[in-house]
Formats: sequence, C-alpha cells, structure tokens
Amino acid sequence: MTILLRVAYDGTHFCGYQIQRSDRTVQGELEAALERLLGEPVRTVCAGRTDTGVHALGQYVSFSAPSSRIEPVSFAPALNSILPDDVSVVSSRLVPDDFHAQYSARQRHYRYYLYAAPVILPHRRRYAWRIPQFPSLARMNRDAEALVGTRDFSAFAMLGGEQRSTVRTVSYARFQPDRDEGLEFCIGATGFLRRMVRSIVGTLVERERLRLRGQEVTTPLEEILARGDRRGAGTTAPPWGLFLYDVDYDPD
Amino acid sequence: MTILLRVAYDGTHFCGYQIQRSDRTVQGELEAALERLLGEPVRTVCAGRTDTGVHALGQYVSFSAPSSRIEPVSFAPALNSILPDDVSVVSSRLVPDDFHAQYSARQRHYRYYLYAAPVILPHRRRYAWRIPQFPSLARMNRDAEALVGTRDFSAFAMLGGEQRSTVRTVSYARFQPDRDEGLEFCIGATGFLRRMVRSIVGTLVERERLRLRGQEVTTPLEEILARGDRRGAGTTAPPWGLFLYDVDYDPD
Repeated sequence: MTILLRVAYDGTHFCGYQIQRSDRTVQGELEAALERLLGEPVRTVCAGRTDTGVHALGQYVSFSAPSSRIEPVSFAPALNSILPDDVSVVSSRLVPDDFHAQYSARQRHYRYYLYAAPVILPHRRRYAWRIPQFPSLARMNRDAEALVGTRDFSAFAMLGGEQRSTVRTVSYARFQPDRDEGLEFCIGATGFLRRMVRSIVGTLVERERLRLRGQEVTTPLEEILARGDRRGAGTTAPPWGLFLYDVDYDPD
Repeated sequence: MTILLRVAYDGTHFCGYQIQRSDRTVQGELEAALERLLGEPVRTVCAGRTDTGVHALGQYVSFSAPSSRIEPVSFAPALNSILPDDVSVVSSRLVPDDFHAQYSARQRHYRYYLYAAPVILPHRRRYAWRIPQFPSLARMNRDAEALVGTRDFSAFAMLGGEQRSTVRTVSYARFQPDRDEGLEFCIGATGFLRRMVRSIVGTLVERERLRLRGQEVTTPLEEILARGDRRGAGTTAPPWGLFLYDVDYDPD
C-alpha cells in the first residue's frame, strides 16, 4: 500500500530535506523512523526538496509500505512518537498505488516571512528575515505581478544550476502584512527552480530598499526576467524566512 | 540619568528573569552586557519577574546610568551588539529619575498561546501549549469574565506562596482565535500573583476539556475564586505558552 504523509519541520538544525551520508536531514530522520517502525528500510519521495535552513508547514512524503498491522492514519502518531521535536507528521493517509508525492503534485505554495524593524523579536529570529524599514507593499506587489504566468525563470535560478527547463507557471505572487512588524510573501506555482523563491524575495527587497533610499529603479522586473541572467537580478534572501507552505494534489 | 529599556526574550533557555548565582537568567545577561558597556556594575529593576521558560515581548527594565557618552536611545543598539540571540532590547529612552520599572507600572498585559490540534507544528512547539481539541471560545469566555474586577486571586496563587495581599484588579480576560489551530488568552491587570496566568489558563482549559467530554462543570468560576483555595482550581499550564506582552506606564 502507498502512504502519504503531511510533514512539518523546523529547518534550523537540518542540512536540508534530502538525505545525505553524514549530515542531519529531514529525509534521514523520516526514513530512520519508518525503518524502526516497520523493521525494514523504506525509500520515500517528497513534493519539494527544501534547502538547508528552510522550514516546512506542508511538505508531503509518499512511500510504499509493506502490508502491516499499522493502519494508514496511524502512521502519523506512530512516527511522532519516534521522531525528534523539530519534525512532525501532521497526518497520514492511504493513496492510490500510482501516487507519487513529487510527480502527482499540481501546485506548490511557499511563504517567505519578513520582519521590518530595527530589532527582531527573539522568538521570530529563526523564522523571518529582518529588513530595516517597512516597505511599500503596493510598490513591491507591482514588481511581484510581473512574475505571474508561464515564464522562463532562469533570472532567478541558481547560477550554474540545472540542465532541464527553467520554465515554470506562477499562479500568484504577492506581499501582505503579517502581525506586528511582519510581512509575508505568498507564491504558488506548478514547480520552483532551486533557490527561486529566495532569489525573487532578495531581488524585490533590494529593489524596494533602493527606492526607499530615494534611488530610481529603472529596469522593470519584466526585463530582468526576459534577460534571463541571474546576475541581472538581486541577492538571495536567507533560508530561515522560507516555508514550504502546502502542496496541491488531485482530490482523489 | 535613568534609562528605560523595552526588552524581548525567548525564555526557552533561561532559568527565569531574576538573577541567580549559577543559572542563566535574563537579568544576568542584561546586567553583564551593561557592565561591559559602561565599565561598572549596574543594578536593574524590571516590570515583572517572569518564571523559567516564560517569554517576553514587552518586558521593561530601568536602571540608573552614570553620565556617559552613550545617548539614551543608543543603549538599545549598543546592548544588542553584546547580548545573545535570545534577548533583544527593542528600544531605550530617558525617563525621570524617580521612575521605577516595577513601581511605576500601571498595568501589565500577558498573552498565553494555545494550539488545538493532535500535532503541534514544530516551529510553534516552543511558544504554545498544545491541547487536543478546539474549545468553545464562548464557553471559555463566560468563565474568563468572572475574573474581571478587583478580587482576591488566592485560588490562582502558588500554593504556600506570598505573604502580601492576594488582591489584584483584572481589567480584561478573554480568549480569541489566532492563526491556524491557535488561540490566545489575553489578560491585563494592575499586577499578577506568581503563576497566576498559568493557573488561570490551566483551570479554564481543564474545565473546557471536561465539558468537551460531556461532563458537567457545576461549580461556577466565581465560587472557585470566592473559596480562595488553590486546590479548588485546576492544573498550572506550562510556561512556554506564556508571554509578558506589554506594560503600561504614565505617558510622562
């Protein structure tokens, strides 16, 4: 039978999602817990491999389980009793055998949290990027609008990165206020290139910072996208503000 | 000159606010940073001494500073460059010489965060108390209303606690929904007895848990208060859900 887990984690003390020989990873912890539970090695696949330091509220992980005495919904509590405090299985359920957490995903949703103040509150430090000044959300959202649609996102891909297509379809991208001095960037797409959300956030924050200093930002974001040159965009925002928020699958 | 700091901290790795000989405390960190900054020992007073594991968004700390080259507003950035990551000075300012962070406080505000779900998200685990089921806010707020006014709160004082008066004036006490599966309890009073907020939250959550199980809760909260017996109330909620949220002082 094939099981789908919804997983949340605090990425602070993980070297990313994907399993590695020596470093601590989310996949490593999950597969070790599954092996302890089922008595045999289990290979998992996930919806999106997050980088070192990136968090998840709604990561999805599927695997083929040997027929066992464990009910599908019982995987969540059973795994939580084994897993460390910084990774939790929110829920577990039975899915069709051809289900694949990565290939069956229709849309991925990310959130990036910013905190605009001279001093960040200590309990938000691990989960938001501090910027010195509250930006104009209207201006930032005019930039963000240029991202929506089916486009080549190589301007926001990791330099020297992947061989495959850099075309993705972004369905929404907007900044909105969060509590206190916080703001959040919400973005949804069929898929993301590696570091894409952090490159977008870093670039849009940098453009707004220049405008707040009274400098003119003359290149429209459309042009940066069209040029397709990573060096034409801005810095990469740090990982700790980023959350894999949710993933959409077909209802069945 | 007398300086007032607004201080925020993550209480997870502190043995409370008040300085102790051997354990790590917020006051200990602040006074060590002040001594390093000013070159002489400094004694501070605070608005409310929080217990081990309790957090603060708006703690206030005052001290008499030797006349120095440091401007009042510059204490915040100067101290932040010395302090560890889990305590931050949000702001600093000059106050009249007769100002005292504890005695000049008019009202203290606390928030207690709850998270109602079978599994708590890892990044909220340090800052909210998980309860298994979402309660009826209307029913819990009917209980909470009984707390408002000038009353003897010995039913919610620490057993074998203080000698002084247990009468306090609560100006508001209510539960409200927070994001995701969260809810928050907001309470303001002239002052609080030790463990008072946590005893109140523990008791109100316990009463609601019984009602959710279909049991009758017959003793009104007014009667528990009137009896003044800590054993007549409920358990004490854990410290990690509690935040000293803010303190009011006279405008001048």
